[in-house]
Amino acid sequence: MTIREDANYITQVSIKRVLPDEAVYQALQGKDFSQGKIYVVAAGKAAWQMAKAASDILGNSVEAGVVVTKYDHVKWEISKMTCYEAGHPVPDENSFKATQAALDLVSDLQPEDTVLFLLSGGGSALFEKPIISGEELQKITQQLLACGADIVEINTLRKRLSLVKGGKFAQICAPANVYSIVLSDILGDPLDMIASGPAYPDTSTCEQALAIIEKYNLKLSEQAMACMKVETPKELNNVTTIITGSVRNLCQAASEACKELGYEPIILTDQLDCEAREAGAFLAAIAKSNQNVEKSVAYIAGGETIVHLTGKGLGGRNQELALASAVGLASCTDTACFSVGSDGTDGPTDAAGGYVDHTTQATLKAQGIDIFEVLKNNDAYHALQKCDGLIITGATGTNVNDVAVLLIKR
Amino acid sequence: MTIREDANYITQVSIKRVLPDEAVYQALQGKDFSQGKIYVVAAGKAAWQMAKAASDILGNSVEAGVVVTKYDHVKWEISKMTCYEAGHPVPDENSFKATQAALDLVSDLQPEDTVLFLLSGGGSALFEKPIISGEELQKITQQLLACGADIVEINTLRKRLSLVKGGKFAQICAPANVYSIVLSDILGDPLDMIASGPAYPDTSTCEQALAIIEKYNLKLSEQAMACMKVETPKELNNVTTIITGSVRNLCQAASEACKELGYEPIILTDQLDCEAREAGAFLAAIAKSNQNVEKSVAYIAGGETIVHLTGKGLGGRNQELALASAVGLASCTDTACFSVGSDGTDGPTDAAGGYVDHTTQATLKAQGIDIFEVLKNNDAYHALQKCDGLIITGATGTNVNDVAVLLIKR
Repeated sequence: MTIREDANYITQVSIKRVLPDEAVYQALQGKDFSQGKIYVVAAGKAAWQMAKAASDILGNSVEAGVVVTKYDHVKWEISKMTCYEAGHPVPDENSFKATQAALDLVSDLQPEDTVLFLLSGGGSALFEKPIISGEELQKITQQLLACGADIVEINTLRKRLSLVKGGKFAQICAPANVYSIVLSDILGDPLDMIASGPAYPDTSTCEQALAIIEKYNLKLSEQAMACMKVETPKELNNVTTIITGSVRNLCQAASEACKELGYEPIILTDQLDCEAREAGAFLAAIAKSNQNVEKSVAYIAGGETIVHLTGKGLGGRNQELALASAVGLASCTDTACFSVGSDGTDGPTDAAGGYVDHTTQATLKAQGIDIFEVLKNNDAYHALQKCDGLIITGATGTNVNDVAVLLIKR
Repeated sequence: MTIREDANYITQVSIKRVLPDEAVYQALQGKDFSQGKIYVVAAGKAAWQMAKAASDILGNSVEAGVVVTKYDHVKWEISKMTCYEAGHPVPDENSFKATQAALDLVSDLQPEDTVLFLLSGGGSALFEKPIISGEELQKITQQLLACGADIVEINTLRKRLSLVKGGKFAQICAPANVYSIVLSDILGDPLDMIASGPAYPDTSTCEQALAIIEKYNLKLSEQAMACMKVETPKELNNVTTIITGSVRNLCQAASEACKELGYEPIILTDQLDCEAREAGAFLAAIAKSNQNVEKSVAYIAGGETIVHLTGKGLGGRNQELALASAVGLASCTDTACFSVGSDGTDGPTDAAGGYVDHTTQATLKAQGIDIFEVLKNNDAYHALQKCDGLIITGATGTNVNDVAVLLIKR
């Protein structure tokens, strides 16, 4: 196999492992909920796929279910479940309606029952039922954004204005047990942040909420102020949480695929969040210093890098990371670097990411293309296109961030 | 020992290992030149220290020597050697005079004699004797710079216009043997680039030189054109080269010091050349993903990062790297990141570098200091000053780039 074929194989295996259905399948392995009834609540961009997988695996043992996802994300009806489409990233009336249906479903359960809660990115807007009016919620959110409050401050208030956020959904499910399967799109998997943690104990306090209102001199109605004084659950003894699809799993899958191909895999991080092109340069620096290795080695870095736009070209963070590494890789032998987004869409392009190796810089130079100029114009897509460097997977239906892999083949 | 004390110890041990005298001492360990006479030629910013160390180690067995370094860099006379001070970064008449003295010294040696050639950064200007006039050399260099020629193109021409560059010095030393000890300040230690390789086989060709002249339409005198047609040595069988002081040694010394303190050391790279703050973010991402390690671990990254100035504050690349990592380190426990320049001078400051740990961000926040704002203003020095984060060593007399270390203590 060529090093490019290795890269393709690693990409395929890694993404497959974090597809919503595979993630649900992994999390349900060996589970037995047969003592009571099973209710499914699925929320987020991957809700439909996750619910469909649960239905396929659990079959008739599912009693009923509510699925809420983005518009155009319901493919067809799922047996025994009601599927809703709703607003994202701003919640709308359909979000509230779907969430109310979920609350109705789980409000009168028995201790032996199970709520299978399937959560994915986007759940914060899609799974929401405010205590106050939708209109006031929007006004408060606007005030918070205008005064520069950070995401932790915003969530501290929003959890108190919601019937489901900050662990309250799990409280409503009680005495039934909640088995929560999470597909994480936030680095480090902060469970109280993903969809504002409907089934996770909350650490923020009323005191903090009131301090934020004072700090920014926010205008709240009497009803909203009353919400601020109700404490969120600090402990939930009816919840089990499994993070089964996350960038960590993506990295682990990449690591296993590398091993299978004879590379010694080293996972550097699954929380990479620096500038994309600099991450590429860092990986290239690792490559240059490790050319004398005797056995093939693979360095893996997962996360979500950033891009600062300075030009008007076409590209994405994964393509920029890969292309930037090509400069350093030019002095290496049999060394490649590639980076892919697990959702299959890198920036506003049809590519999932980019692939380069020790020959890329020379190939581009021969066509009169200078990598520094390309990066200055944020035009990685067109450069990679000219050296067979685009990785195309199509939309995958999952989003657990990105993975970059450096391969040194010996 | 605290984690800060660990950092200080690792810094001291690492820099000590790459001091010019220590580097020469290491390279001369177990060497026996007693079959003939020993002549010393030392050139570069650290020439005096290297020559002094050689004199101390070899004593009376040195026959004679020539030392050429920057102005104000000769501390006192060295027994049997003649010390010169000359122009840097632009060579001047003193450079030519000193280099001629060195050529006179090595021109009529015997096969059993040894030329101990001690080379350090800055040697390109300090060790130079042009075949053409100094004035024409300068004119050609100016033409090359004006037309945007790269450093490889410039060197291809300059090697042919020099009596010593491109391996020619070693040719003149023949039939004596040359034992070359190199203190490298260029990442990857490209021996034909350090001082344009006076004692290293040259890979550039006359054909390439003529192509460059045509490409940029350069104006050369007849004499200069004649130089272009004389090939540089492609093989030198009288030379042994030891790179003893380099960022690789700096990293190895840091690695050994870490091990001594109970950390498992991992050298990621010794050729790091990306944006300083992004390297800090990358190291912090590694820290965040490795908090569950059972044993203490140290990640080491050597090289020379870069800084793009956007503000008017005070700082240096090492200080920026360290400070930027503090953001990610805030969610860690017993984790520190520090970065130091081996020359003891980071940017236009009295600090060698910066140190931060998991407490730094909170310490600064309590003083109303926001790390992102500080970095925007390139003012790492003043922020680090306020959290005991400056590493001060004083000028060390060596320059083999920088080393950054991430410590996770368990």
